[in-house]
Amino acid sequence: MIDKLLSGDRRILARLITMIEDDDSTKNDYLKDIYTHTGNAHIVGITGAPGSGKSSLTDRVISEVLKEEKKVGVIAVDPSSPFSGGAILGDRIRMQEHTLDPRVFIRSMGTRGTLGGLSRSTREVIKVLDAFGKDIVFVETVGVGQSEVDIVKYADTTVLVLTPAAGDSVQTIKAGVMEIADIFVVNKADLPGKDRTVTELEAMLDLSPAKEWRPPVITSNALKGEGIVDIWETIQKHRQYLEDSGLLFSVRKERAKRELVDQVENLIKSIVWSRIKENISLEELTEELAERKTDPYTASRELLEKAGFSFS
Amino acid sequence: MIDKLLSGDRRILARLITMIEDDDSTKNDYLKDIYTHTGNAHIVGITGAPGSGKSSLTDRVISEVLKEEKKVGVIAVDPSSPFSGGAILGDRIRMQEHTLDPRVFIRSMGTRGTLGGLSRSTREVIKVLDAFGKDIVFVETVGVGQSEVDIVKYADTTVLVLTPAAGDSVQTIKAGVMEIADIFVVNKADLPGKDRTVTELEAMLDLSPAKEWRPPVITSNALKGEGIVDIWETIQKHRQYLEDSGLLFSVRKERAKRELVDQVENLIKSIVWSRIKENISLEELTEELAERKTDPYTASRELLEKAGFSFS
Repeated sequence: MIDKLLSGDRRILARLITMIEDDDSTKNDYLKDIYTHTGNAHIVGITGAPGSGKSSLTDRVISEVLKEEKKVGVIAVDPSSPFSGGAILGDRIRMQEHTLDPRVFIRSMGTRGTLGGLSRSTREVIKVLDAFGKDIVFVETVGVGQSEVDIVKYADTTVLVLTPAAGDSVQTIKAGVMEIADIFVVNKADLPGKDRTVTELEAMLDLSPAKEWRPPVITSNALKGEGIVDIWETIQKHRQYLEDSGLLFSVRKERAKRELVDQVENLIKSIVWSRIKENISLEELTEELAERKTDPYTASRELLEKAGFSFS
Repeated sequence: MIDKLLSGDRRILARLITMIEDDDSTKNDYLKDIYTHTGNAHIVGITGAPGSGKSSLTDRVISEVLKEEKKVGVIAVDPSSPFSGGAILGDRIRMQEHTLDPRVFIRSMGTRGTLGGLSRSTREVIKVLDAFGKDIVFVETVGVGQSEVDIVKYADTTVLVLTPAAGDSVQTIKAGVMEIADIFVVNKADLPGKDRTVTELEAMLDLSPAKEWRPPVITSNALKGEGIVDIWETIQKHRQYLEDSGLLFSVRKERAKRELVDQVENLIKSIVWSRIKENISLEELTEELAERKTDPYTASRELLEKAGFSFS
């Protein structure tokens, strides 16, 4: 299966992604083998409020990427939607220009379980697309909340798409969101207020601590195709900067560490719960808790001790 | 300290909440002792989009509650804000009517670390206010996203505040949010579109699976004080329904179980990481991971084995 994936079998690719979404118990066996084949793709996060035109913009940028004979993967993540599946969901319809193009693989992902689960699945699907040989993987998120920030942290380069509309005033952008942007795009630049939005962004950047990479502010009109070449060139420039500065490696090391921590915790949790299930009925303790005869702190120690974990 | 808390010492209350927010290493000792004194307060979640008038509404409802000589706690949670502290933040200014009232304790909480962390702190602060002797604890969240849903799950009764404004059209409310409401309030009922919003809500409820408790739809105008008595009476009616139907106990049992699971996982994680820190350098493995010489699945097993956890 892994050999087929590495040799470019799209059906295997789709099957693996479905396994990840279903949280199939055997998926880790495959992810384990894939891991050493990853690290080549450039992961580009594209985020922005609903209605900012992210999808049309991504669509246009993809056309630019394809001109360079590069292979593209797109993951469209919607933390507020419980639906996942093909490329025909909601906004994705706008990306239909590329839906049938064999060089482009598009997948929508929604929240089946928890947000943490979605964040992990996204990370795993990125890995699969990377191993599959995609040169660029776009991770598009619908919205700009904390959940989107959590997802975008897997990107090497993050593009934040704004519009000149009143509601998108730079002041209203939530804390923690501005900081993730490597590139700002003011889309729908034909709307009134464009200059004000650009000025506000530049003023905000002037006030931010100086960094080697100052996020450029680009204006675009995705529907008319304006500004797209500029966006794509800036994405590549940012990647080049990451490589030259050594940041690409250090950021990826940091990410690898988080993955390891995450995996250690998953593994120990699964060990703990399988041992607890074998030995102890949770129900009894829960009943005692609900009646306030014990407390979760005492009960959890008790459970772990019974399951054979000792405390120093 | 616990005795002082139980006897109503507000300074101790404030100090304990600060410990929770700071994730102080000794907080669990106190939470452990508090637990058996909890379970008396009625936890009421109030959620709704920014601008729906939640704060003014909560303010007015508090005045009703106080007429009955009941003691009130308010936790105002803003998952998008990194700030926490007293009662003077943002929206809270509107609640100043009660800021100086000794029968009311108001606290704002923001995201200092992760969303999961905020959700846990909220749960812990609810416990502290409950043990302190509050009869009603309002948990007000700013927004209606997944993070708010996660926080509201600690409430016995959840009030979803809407307005007749176009952007609040029932269709635009995200999946998973409608389901959490026990009571719908259409606030700012003087705005045009009130009847349409009420009709849409009722139509949606008609289409939902029939439940014993059909969420009532109440109209209000918090600024003018209209509909407030109705809201407070309905909140009490819902609590009565929960008690009579036995749901209160079963829901709290379910919640106790989640708390236990959470606590078991926290405990085992802290054991694992303290053992790993003693024995093994994570750095070396991280480096290997970043260079793709190993994978997180193999590395995590290795780490846990070295830390003395065996696999069957």
